[in-house]
Amino acid sequence: MATQSEIEHPNKAFGYAARDASGFLHPFSFSRREAGEKDVAFKVLYCGICHSDLHMVKNEWGFSTYPLVPGHEVVGVVTEVGSKVEKFKVGDRVGVGCMVDSCRTCQNCCDNLENYCPQYTLTYGAKHKDGTITYGGYSDSMVADEHFVVGIPDGLPLDAAAPLLCAGITVYSPLRYFALDKPGLHVGVVGLGGLGHVAVKFIKAFGAKVTVISTSPNKKEEAIQHLGADSFIISRDQDQMQGAMGTLDGIIDTVSAVHPLLPLIGLLKSHGKLVMVGAPEKPLEMPVIPLLMGGKIVAGSSMGGIKETQEMIDFAAQHNVKPDIEVIPMHYVNTAMERLLKLDVKYRFVIDIGNTLQST
Amino acid sequence: MATQSEIEHPNKAFGYAARDASGFLHPFSFSRREAGEKDVAFKVLYCGICHSDLHMVKNEWGFSTYPLVPGHEVVGVVTEVGSKVEKFKVGDRVGVGCMVDSCRTCQNCCDNLENYCPQYTLTYGAKHKDGTITYGGYSDSMVADEHFVVGIPDGLPLDAAAPLLCAGITVYSPLRYFALDKPGLHVGVVGLGGLGHVAVKFIKAFGAKVTVISTSPNKKEEAIQHLGADSFIISRDQDQMQGAMGTLDGIIDTVSAVHPLLPLIGLLKSHGKLVMVGAPEKPLEMPVIPLLMGGKIVAGSSMGGIKETQEMIDFAAQHNVKPDIEVIPMHYVNTAMERLLKLDVKYRFVIDIGNTLQST
Repeated sequence: MATQSEIEHPNKAFGYAARDASGFLHPFSFSRREAGEKDVAFKVLYCGICHSDLHMVKNEWGFSTYPLVPGHEVVGVVTEVGSKVEKFKVGDRVGVGCMVDSCRTCQNCCDNLENYCPQYTLTYGAKHKDGTITYGGYSDSMVADEHFVVGIPDGLPLDAAAPLLCAGITVYSPLRYFALDKPGLHVGVVGLGGLGHVAVKFIKAFGAKVTVISTSPNKKEEAIQHLGADSFIISRDQDQMQGAMGTLDGIIDTVSAVHPLLPLIGLLKSHGKLVMVGAPEKPLEMPVIPLLMGGKIVAGSSMGGIKETQEMIDFAAQHNVKPDIEVIPMHYVNTAMERLLKLDVKYRFVIDIGNTLQST
Repeated sequence: MATQSEIEHPNKAFGYAARDASGFLHPFSFSRREAGEKDVAFKVLYCGICHSDLHMVKNEWGFSTYPLVPGHEVVGVVTEVGSKVEKFKVGDRVGVGCMVDSCRTCQNCCDNLENYCPQYTLTYGAKHKDGTITYGGYSDSMVADEHFVVGIPDGLPLDAAAPLLCAGITVYSPLRYFALDKPGLHVGVVGLGGLGHVAVKFIKAFGAKVTVISTSPNKKEEAIQHLGADSFIISRDQDQMQGAMGTLDGIIDTVSAVHPLLPLIGLLKSHGKLVMVGAPEKPLEMPVIPLLMGGKIVAGSSMGGIKETQEMIDFAAQHNVKPDIEVIPMHYVNTAMERLLKLDVKYRFVIDIGNTLQST
C-alpha cells in the first residue's frame, strides 16, 4: 500500500528508515521532489553514519518523526541540474552535509553562517519549506538547492569524503574561527572518535602541534603512531595533567558525556580556548575564577557554513586529510549502529550505498 | 612599639590597615622601600575602594595576611624617581592599579599581559621579590617600578581616575580583546555597580549601543537617563528577556553572585560573547547545547596589562569617561565598607587621602 511519503513527490526513492523509537532501520520506499531550477539531484554513492543518527533514530532528542531516513554525510554523482544551477553539471562529484536549506535572508545566512540560521532545514527529519519532511542519505538519491551542495575535488575518494561533511566541518570550523590553525600553536583534542580523529588530522595539516587527551590509555599508540598526534595525555592521570598545565593554545572537546571542565581549562595557556563540539545534554559545571585568571574562553561550535564547508573539503583534498573509515554494506547498518553505541569503530562507518542498497 | 613592618624599610609610611578578619581598618604606621633606580615614589592623593578590598580585609578568599593595607586604585603625584626611570619625573600625576610587579620574563609578560603572569605581585597583601609584604593605597605614599606606574593625563581629575585603575581596566580590556568596541555593535552589561557603570560609559564612548541587564527595576531611570544606556532589561522579566533574545553581540557580566547563564547566553547573537568579570566562588551551570547552537562564547577576563591600562586611561581622558564617585574622608572608610556591602554607593567610593589621612 502506497503511503503518502511514497507518492507525495514525483520521483521514486528508496532507502532505509527507522519506523519508531526502537531505531531499527528497515528498507523504505519514498519519493523525492523533481529538481527545481536551482536544484541539484544526485545519485547517492556513500553516506557516513554520524553519532547523531543514532540519537535521531531512537528519538533521544525528542523531535524525531517517523519514518525517519537518517544520513547527513552524503556524497554521490550529479544526475540532474535545474535550469538556473551554476555551480554543478551532470556527472560532478558532490555532497550534502547537515543542512539542505535555510532562510537565506537573516544576518547569519548573509554572513555565510547558515549553520546558525534559526530556520535552517536539517537534511533529514525536518520540515522543508514545501511542507514535506526531509529524508537523509541512507537512500539512493538526493535533491537539494545548489547552495547547499558542495563539490568533492577529484583527489578525494568519495567514501572518505563523506564524513568530512559533518565530522570534518564540525571540527574545522572552530579551528579556523578561533585561529587554532597556525604552525607553532599547540592544540588539544579531547576524545578520539569520529570528530576527534579528524580534528587531529586537520590540526596536523595546519602545521600545529596536537595533543590527544583521552580516558583510554590504549588509544595512545593509535593516536601517536597512526594518526600522527605529537603527544597523548590520559585525562585521569593527575601527574600527566599537572605536567601539561598551561601548555595548550586551544582544545577541541568532542565529548558528549557530562565531564569536568576544570582540568581542561587548566591545560590552557592564557587566552586559551576550550571549544565544545560535543553536546552534553545536561549543563556542565563551569568554574569561573580559573577562566578569569587566564582570560580563557569556553565556546560552543556547531557544524559550519556552506562556503566554509567547501573550503574545508578543498583543504582536505589539498592536504590529504582523509577520515579513517570502515565501509559497510547497507544491510549491515543496524549492526553498525550497535557497534557505534559501543564506540567500536575506527573511526567512522560509511555505508556503500551505490553498490549495496538494492530495492527489494 | 615598633613592629617589623614599621622599620623594615627606610621610609616611614602611614595608612589604614585591617589587623584581623573583622576587617575593621585602623590607623597604621609602616615603612616603604627607598626608590630604586627603576622606581617611582609618589604621594598618594586618592584611592578607590574596590569590592575586592572588602573581601580581602575580611580574608574571605583565604589568603589575606595581617596587617593588611588595602587599595589598588591609587593615584597621586610623583615625589621621587630612580636614576634609570624614563617615563616619569617629579610632579607627574600617576597611578598604580592591581599589580606592582611581575616576573617580566614569561610569555604573558612579553605579550604585555602582566595580568596573567603566574608570578605577578599584587599591590597589597602579596609577597614582593624582596620578601616583604606589599601595602596598598589606603596610605600616604607608594613606591613601584615605573613599568607598573601609569601616567594620568591632565584632563582627567585624579579622584575620578582612581577607579579606572581596577574597575576601568577590568571592563575595558575584554571590550577591546573581544572586539566589542565598535560603533554598530550592541553590548549588554549585567549588574550596575562599580564595574558595570564604567562598562556602560566605555561602551558608549566606543560608539556602540548598550543595554543594562539588572535584577533591580529601580535602576532603569539611572541607567538610561544618567549613565546614557540605550535600553534596560529586568532580568527577572521573562517577556523582556524573551523580547531581547539574540540581539547582543556581547555581554560584560559583572555579577559575583552565583547566577544562571542560560538566559544571558540566549540574549547573544550567533558568535556572541558572554564575558565574566565578576568572580562567583562556586562553579556556574553552563548549558552546552545553547552555546553550540549559536557558536557562542563564555569567557573570563581579569584586570588588564600595564600597556593597555595606560591606553585605557588615555582613552578615558580623551573621551571624558569618568567613573561616578563619592569622595570620602579617610576616617569614613569603615562606614564606607559597610555601605559597600549593601551596594549603597553610586558607584565607587574614593578616599581623599591627600586631604584627610593624618598621622595621629
